[in-house]
Amino acid sequence: MVANKYKESVVKLIEEVWSKGNLSLVTELIAVQYKILHDPGDPWESKVLDHEEFKKRVILSRSVFPDQAFVINDIVGEENKVTISWFMTGTQKGDIPGILQATNKFVRIPGLTIYYFTDDKISAHWQLVDRLSLIEQLGMLKKSK
Amino acid sequence: MVANKYKESVVKLIEEVWSKGNLSLVTELIAVQYKILHDPGDPWESKVLDHEEFKKRVILSRSVFPDQAFVINDIVGEENKVTISWFMTGTQKGDIPGILQATNKFVRIPGLTIYYFTDDKISAHWQLVDRLSLIEQLGMLKKSK
Repeated sequence: MVANKYKESVVKLIEEVWSKGNLSLVTELIAVQYKILHDPGDPWESKVLDHEEFKKRVILSRSVFPDQAFVINDIVGEENKVTISWFMTGTQKGDIPGILQATNKFVRIPGLTIYYFTDDKISAHWQLVDRLSLIEQLGMLKKSK
Repeated sequence: MVANKYKESVVKLIEEVWSKGNLSLVTELIAVQYKILHDPGDPWESKVLDHEEFKKRVILSRSVFPDQAFVINDIVGEENKVTISWFMTGTQKGDIPGILQATNKFVRIPGLTIYYFTDDKISAHWQLVDRLSLIEQLGMLKKSK
């Protein structure tokens, strides 16, 4: 059951790196080349990140939401793939550059991610975040008929 | 490998029921009580559907997008759970009641779904559709700063 070991890596990535900003684990968990296969709205979508760029992505996210925390709702693993459903909570204390100044609004956003492993490291993801919910909660949405 | 049998059921659900409107397969594939665990924007979210309500949900979707078709991008199965990443294409030829008249716009929307099985039937799902992309493509979005 390779997937169980990989599940542990994904849990560590979420709980330590994304939820606590523990960047020292990036080298252990993440492949030297990490591809964002699909992640609408993410500025790095379709790019390949090295460790420094991966860390920058975490730092940027945590500069906008310094208290961001992820709770894993469920996990499905097979071979070199691990899916998680999750909720992110955080307070938008930092500016989103060029888009939105700090609102101090608290948000709770669902997401679903498939992580892919190569040589026992997380090497890619295919993700959806409920972006509509995010911009609604940040007060950025005007729908027109 | 229970998951492989379940993968086949999910593929059939997507290719036959959702992409072709073949409602005769609902009884074979879907549990008598089908729960929508999480699906932001879906009018049935958090409800339990019987077969007739499940069919109504498919019919409503296909009345808005009569040519709707789903392509499965990847599939991850474990025990009684099957994740798929997918793209839906369709032309909005029908009204979305109370929200939007027919635009005849063609859309392509990504989604991620975890399906859950009980007694060999699909009994629940936890899903995200990229709703922001959908309303953008239908011309319904105005973002404010």
